[in-house]
Amino acid sequence: MGGIVYLVGAGPGDPELITVKGLSTLRKAEVVIYDRLIDKKILSNVRGDALLIYAGKNIGEAEKQETITSLIIKHAKEGKIVVRLKGGDPYVFGRGEEECERVINEGIPCEVIPGVTSAIAGPTYAGIPITGRQYSPAVSIISATRKGDEVIEPDYIPSKGTLVILMGIHKFTQLRGVLLKVRSANEPVAVIENATLESQRVFICSLNDMDKVISQNNVKSPAVIVVGDVVKMRDKLWKLS
Amino acid sequence: MGGIVYLVGAGPGDPELITVKGLSTLRKAEVVIYDRLIDKKILSNVRGDALLIYAGKNIGEAEKQETITSLIIKHAKEGKIVVRLKGGDPYVFGRGEEECERVINEGIPCEVIPGVTSAIAGPTYAGIPITGRQYSPAVSIISATRKGDEVIEPDYIPSKGTLVILMGIHKFTQLRGVLLKVRSANEPVAVIENATLESQRVFICSLNDMDKVISQNNVKSPAVIVVGDVVKMRDKLWKLS
Repeated sequence: MGGIVYLVGAGPGDPELITVKGLSTLRKAEVVIYDRLIDKKILSNVRGDALLIYAGKNIGEAEKQETITSLIIKHAKEGKIVVRLKGGDPYVFGRGEEECERVINEGIPCEVIPGVTSAIAGPTYAGIPITGRQYSPAVSIISATRKGDEVIEPDYIPSKGTLVILMGIHKFTQLRGVLLKVRSANEPVAVIENATLESQRVFICSLNDMDKVISQNNVKSPAVIVVGDVVKMRDKLWKLS
Repeated sequence: MGGIVYLVGAGPGDPELITVKGLSTLRKAEVVIYDRLIDKKILSNVRGDALLIYAGKNIGEAEKQETITSLIIKHAKEGKIVVRLKGGDPYVFGRGEEECERVINEGIPCEVIPGVTSAIAGPTYAGIPITGRQYSPAVSIISATRKGDEVIEPDYIPSKGTLVILMGIHKFTQLRGVLLKVRSANEPVAVIENATLESQRVFICSLNDMDKVISQNNVKSPAVIVVGDVVKMRDKLWKLS
């Protein structure tokens, strides 16, 4: 019997934010290839006889991506039900589209199961709605880091509306410079470290002092940066513990 | 004992795309106030003795929003566990922030449980990744309709990157006009009706002929409109049935 690949979004961190479909797919997996940020509680749902493969990788490690893709294909070709378990959503800066394309090119069926992204749930758990009728009818979700480790260009940043920036901590000075080309220095900013987890930390500042706040508090990846008036809603909304 | 309110995102349509946390919260609800687009299969998880209240509303019906908020507060004040079940994610154009603020102002605890948004899962089920290293490091999710039923302004639309537009079908001609102020007429467009459901229909066109395609095929709300090069990926990725 032929193998099959599922790219499953595990959600933003809180292990209960995986979808019902994601969880039931994980439970039938024979091989699970999982990312660095996947919670151990999610992995505890895997079958006792399933093969668990850790595929943690850091930004820029291109060879590792190739190794991961080859592993997925190898096990699927052996007829296995393979789950590639990814943090957040497979198609939100998850390189899921590359893995899916390669799997399909090998003649192996590939299904993508969406997950809750930290770009939305991260701000929510910090008491910040990313949209709001009073504040913003649009949200731009941006990877601060482009292919080749370059910083995002200003053309991707609209002059109005909420911005949610992922993968921005390791180059926050450059990022701030790009944002200031389009946005004003006094725009409210929230920096959310370890979004949706018990270890979550939230720092409120402005675009002007964003770099100081990140360095003084020693904020580490993964962190979500929110820019825009929606940040002001935090004072009004329930702080989720 | 005091009541509590949970704003729960039910996901984009496919009933299995609700989160584990959303489902377990729904199962303990004593009162469920649900939106028009919620699948009956999701509602079948509710306790036998729970009160189910339909709160379907169409765009612009402001009085209904007030009625819904009052209902939430009334039942919570009676000490009930109230679930406000919303399509997609409560904070992605769901007016969840208004409901949450009002509930908190009444001294009632309110917790928000994120859901998968159709802005991401809709394109995924149509074989379109909203981001991609080869195509776009950013995605803007935009409500075509603003408060007061006006169309979105061009300031919210970046000149580059993927655009995902919700609530655009009932004013697609105006929307196309705004998009053409920022984007070129030959940009690829996907129009996805009933995203993630079995009745899903997908139409591929360009910004230039988007209005013709929507009217000739009699596309109805809810539909997700995707603009950008990521639409080209559809040919390469597995078509989910």
